[in-house]
Amino acid sequence: MLVVMQEGAEEAQIQSVIDRLVEMGFTVHRSTGVTHTVLGGVGPVDHFEPADFEVMNGVKECHRIVSPYKLASHNFKPGGTVVRLGNVEIGGNKVISMAGPCSVESAEQIERAADIVAKAGAQVIRGGAFKPRSSPYSFQGMGEEGLKLMRKAADRHGLLVVSEVMDHTQIPLLLTYSDILQVGARNMQNFNLLRELGRVRKPVLLKRGISATIEELLLSAEYILSGGNYDVILCERGIRTFETYTRNTFDVSAIPVLKRLTHLPVMGDPSHGTGKRDYVLPMARAAVAAGADGLIVEVHHDPDRAISDGAQTLRPEQFAEMMQQVRAIADAIGRAA
Amino acid sequence: MLVVMQEGAEEAQIQSVIDRLVEMGFTVHRSTGVTHTVLGGVGPVDHFEPADFEVMNGVKECHRIVSPYKLASHNFKPGGTVVRLGNVEIGGNKVISMAGPCSVESAEQIERAADIVAKAGAQVIRGGAFKPRSSPYSFQGMGEEGLKLMRKAADRHGLLVVSEVMDHTQIPLLLTYSDILQVGARNMQNFNLLRELGRVRKPVLLKRGISATIEELLLSAEYILSGGNYDVILCERGIRTFETYTRNTFDVSAIPVLKRLTHLPVMGDPSHGTGKRDYVLPMARAAVAAGADGLIVEVHHDPDRAISDGAQTLRPEQFAEMMQQVRAIADAIGRAA
Amino acid sequence: MLVVMQEGAEEAQIQSVIDRLVEMGFTVHRSTGVTHTVLGGVGPVDHFEPADFEVMNGVKECHRIVSPYKLASHNFKPGGTVVRLGNVEIGGNKVISMAGPCSVESAEQIERAADIVAKAGAQVIRGGAFKPRSSPYSFQGMGEEGLKLMRKAADRHGLLVVSEVMDHTQIPLLLTYSDILQVGARNMQNFNLLRELGRVRKPVLLKRGISATIEELLLSAEYILSGGNYDVILCERGIRTFETYTRNTFDVSAIPVLKRLTHLPVMGDPSHGTGKRDYVLPMARAAVAAGADGLIVEVHHDPDRAISDGAQTLRPEQFAEMMQQVRAIADAIGRAA
Amino acid sequence: MLVVMQEGAEEAQIQSVIDRLVEMGFTVHRSTGVTHTVLGGVGPVDHFEPADFEVMNGVKECHRIVSPYKLASHNFKPGGTVVRLGNVEIGGNKVISMAGPCSVESAEQIERAADIVAKAGAQVIRGGAFKPRSSPYSFQGMGEEGLKLMRKAADRHGLLVVSEVMDHTQIPLLLTYSDILQVGARNMQNFNLLRELGRVRKPVLLKRGISATIEELLLSAEYILSGGNYDVILCERGIRTFETYTRNTFDVSAIPVLKRLTHLPVMGDPSHGTGKRDYVLPMARAAVAAGADGLIVEVHHDPDRAISDGAQTLRPEQFAEMMQQVRAIADAIGRAA
Repeated sequence: MLVVMQEGAEEAQIQSVIDRLVEMGFTVHRSTGVTHTVLGGVGPVDHFEPADFEVMNGVKECHRIVSPYKLASHNFKPGGTVVRLGNVEIGGNKVISMAGPCSVESAEQIERAADIVAKAGAQVIRGGAFKPRSSPYSFQGMGEEGLKLMRKAADRHGLLVVSEVMDHTQIPLLLTYSDILQVGARNMQNFNLLRELGRVRKPVLLKRGISATIEELLLSAEYILSGGNYDVILCERGIRTFETYTRNTFDVSAIPVLKRLTHLPVMGDPSHGTGKRDYVLPMARAAVAAGADGLIVEVHHDPDRAISDGAQTLRPEQFAEMMQQVRAIADAIGRAA
Repeated sequence: MLVVMQEGAEEAQIQSVIDRLVEMGFTVHRSTGVTHTVLGGVGPVDHFEPADFEVMNGVKECHRIVSPYKLASHNFKPGGTVVRLGNVEIGGNKVISMAGPCSVESAEQIERAADIVAKAGAQVIRGGAFKPRSSPYSFQGMGEEGLKLMRKAADRHGLLVVSEVMDHTQIPLLLTYSDILQVGARNMQNFNLLRELGRVRKPVLLKRGISATIEELLLSAEYILSGGNYDVILCERGIRTFETYTRNTFDVSAIPVLKRLTHLPVMGDPSHGTGKRDYVLPMARAAVAAGADGLIVEVHHDPDRAISDGAQTLRPEQFAEMMQQVRAIADAIGRAA
Repeated sequence: MLVVMQEGAEEAQIQSVIDRLVEMGFTVHRSTGVTHTVLGGVGPVDHFEPADFEVMNGVKECHRIVSPYKLASHNFKPGGTVVRLGNVEIGGNKVISMAGPCSVESAEQIERAADIVAKAGAQVIRGGAFKPRSSPYSFQGMGEEGLKLMRKAADRHGLLVVSEVMDHTQIPLLLTYSDILQVGARNMQNFNLLRELGRVRKPVLLKRGISATIEELLLSAEYILSGGNYDVILCERGIRTFETYTRNTFDVSAIPVLKRLTHLPVMGDPSHGTGKRDYVLPMARAAVAAGADGLIVEVHHDPDRAISDGAQTLRPEQFAEMMQQVRAIADAIGRAA
Repeated sequence: MLVVMQEGAEEAQIQSVIDRLVEMGFTVHRSTGVTHTVLGGVGPVDHFEPADFEVMNGVKECHRIVSPYKLASHNFKPGGTVVRLGNVEIGGNKVISMAGPCSVESAEQIERAADIVAKAGAQVIRGGAFKPRSSPYSFQGMGEEGLKLMRKAADRHGLLVVSEVMDHTQIPLLLTYSDILQVGARNMQNFNLLRELGRVRKPVLLKRGISATIEELLLSAEYILSGGNYDVILCERGIRTFETYTRNTFDVSAIPVLKRLTHLPVMGDPSHGTGKRDYVLPMARAAVAAGADGLIVEVHHDPDRAISDGAQTLRPEQFAEMMQQVRAIADAIGRAA
């Protein structure tokens, strides 16, 4: 840790900072410059708040040197993590595609979705059984019945299943039916949920919150990793900015940034990222061109009649076209899809 | 609902929108202008997504006319809600103060906190027993033991208790020890939690998420209200913006906006709003001047040694000064404090 | 225009809105619903502020139906604008590349830059002669001497020149030396400058401001177009958000959105968009994959010694690699580069 | 400056950073810790970009120690700057009020405005003669004629004049008619304009840009101060965030932050800060409670018929009420108004 004292800080103030650092277990190096004294704290302590020092008298600013996450950092596993599910590898050379409706609505609907998804060559079907909806009056999902229907449809078409867990009490149910457990954007900092997922032995797809920094996303991954579950897949799905033309601003640059900061696989969700069907194709291409290990998108046999998220849901023929374009882009950068 | 068609939209496109509106249960009024056709949908249906229409061919834009929340709207109770706890009224003429440490740390600490809070004239003690921390390595709270200690300290000093519930499974515990159940910013859209709190018969202090719009805050309140719990207190505590000098941007203007849109009491939290102790006083004054019904702030007998949030925690003498200043401001606008 | 009255709005309030609409020149259609009265204003008037109606008594909200820009809208020229400069076409099938140093620093430096740019196959050299710097103590550019040097270097290598004009008084100077006049992000709403550029007969590269909405960018383009200069090229270069890991958030989705809303060519600037050299390549690929008509990036023979913007400036070999990758992506989506 | 090397950085990488620091004129102190080597650079050089070091191999991060602004910093003049115009003092104990219409529209209108402003006890009249409008089709101001009318009206009522200068070529005109030259939010980084205003000997009211950080505002002030004009008044007027209910988010906390960082007077503009008339009063109170040295608001004898900004413009009686309330708040915190 580095504490920069203000110009003209008094000796007593400097001593007071040193005392506190020592009290916390740091070894302190003092360096006196022309205008500023800088104190370097070295030691085993890394869970302090820089802000706690910044409010001390005479302190100008304080910087954390060591990253607050460890298991999620690139250095921890420089070769990169590949999440394996049967013969599907997430984080390898091949770009993986997950697709399906926003919500499971009926046996027929999810069966048709599985057919569309499998035929176009995707590996994983997605679908929500428990829906986080901002209005209490909106459809809240089919629950376990929806999971059962999706599992059956997936099995018939040789697909894996990813579905959202909204709460730690739902984990056992999801483990029964789903191959990958998704943590939605609103739950990225539901720490009780994250902690419990650390004890699970199935992969977790962790979506970035709409106002979460990249560092916060990695700290949330650290919760799961520190519990012993190493199969965490990150997903960029749009952040909230002043621009309202798109539902969110799909932060494509987070993809190469994450690929550099962490060893975990990184996916992109252009459906939530843009909120509008017509922008899903170009942004799916952009995400893959930027280095995404996979995509997750919404598709429905009749999006105009989808119960939720219809506006951002692809029509079957658009999805097939997207898969073709994604293969062309993957090929152009030396990957498969 | 209003659907504005694009300039030159074809008759078939217009008809297709009308058909869908009728199918959903709307009565449709068509109005043909020089450049645009506008379709007005009137009916019992208000839980649709404007975006679903905006992606239809020939549609320019779609506007929801009816607010998506009802029980939370000002019209529902124009006189305003007053939450009563013994002889404390939140939402009345008197500005209420809640204060205490970020976390309950020990019997001695919470006892000293209760003493400071009561002596300065505040009505409610706050303190966290379960702490949502962005790092898995940080202190996670004392749990039930912390709640017990805080309850005892509060009772000794005639204070009410507010404490955070992180999860619906913690509700019974919080009901045992706390007078007001706080929903933290990260949980503002934890819909399972909100739904369960609707069944509770104690007041809920609902904090605005750092990236939540005012409308989303009111929709979250609606979840609780629609379950039958009418004692919801809203709290502005800072939003995330590009400015990083303060921890968050304390959106003071949300206070008068909420006072106009809803009948619920509105509080301000300048501790989290600014993240730095030295700005809590001026921003506490600003919140009250803007019309807040109460304040919630962090105070500790020795903030330099607080386990969490020390930087934004007031010293005892600063808190006493804040209470005096708040009384002066309240007086200047014709309120008590 | 549509004015939605509040539930229970009084007749006198409704009449007062109607009177004001008529006074402004609108023909008014009144439609009375179960809960809300809606007033539609049709007429020649489109430069009003919806907010002016929203503060009237009894009004719930007001929506503008007609876009506030016309000449910049896609409908105005559905075939798309192609800006032609000799045999270079911006907005056609070929993806155009503009590259060069942040600032012109010396004859040798700009000559080496022109060599790098031309050899890698780009069409336009960029370089600043007048630098908008946030600190008054930073290098402010070589001025006219810099423009002369860049013109000569460009001519020797068969390149076009783009350079920034900071002020309407600099227009004559830029017209002498530059083929394309760039309006920087900070000047996107310098309306005096925009107005004067409407009278110029050279193309203008208009960069999006870091906090400008897409609509505001199009309104700024409208200033230039309405003066009679139809050769406007738009450029996304990053917006300011809460995420600080990258210098800005490169809003890639603005590219397909703009391609739909306007007929003007759209470029991307991944150098300013990310602020870090190592992210320029993946984001250049992403911009082209998303549909950009061109790229503008910074390259320098020795970025570690560049006077300004070194961190986001490519090394020569990185630039050559970028050009190859961009060609592969362009090819994958059926374009040339 | 502090450069923190990555864990495991190679000696050659460290040496390369040291070489570059020395080459730039820094004296380097090296400190080797358990995990990280830290290099401290001390010297006369403060106009470097931390990002330039952050992209060097082996570097983890780089921190600037010395503030990039000097003349604007609080230390430069700890007693605070008081701008004096006749017997009006801006930055003293008395809270100063500036008010008037958005645009000067006619002799009668500005005369009535001056009457309203003077009667309510404000000291300065505001009014725009050159209007920065986002649409080229909107009213662009009366120009010099407007300035003449405002000067006459001000003189008749013993008021000072503040008006906006959009461009450095307009400075002479503004100097003729206005006592204070306003730099609007869109021009906060128009560096040519700022530089010229440094040569002027009249006070400048510098408004914060809607996406400008507090540090950028102070750097813009530094431009003016470094030219020799020490009479700079800062003004918070709302920043752009995701919240759209208010036109901008009025960053009230910027007021106490600026009062701590700089010696310059700080004002608040709740009209632009909120964009809606009904929120101007509570936010004017909040700004003064937070420590503002003055307010600037819009008032018009008939805001419903104002040519521009009517929605955020106070009616005469609202303005009179605001002045009374502001006096009560000022009194409560020991100031006059």
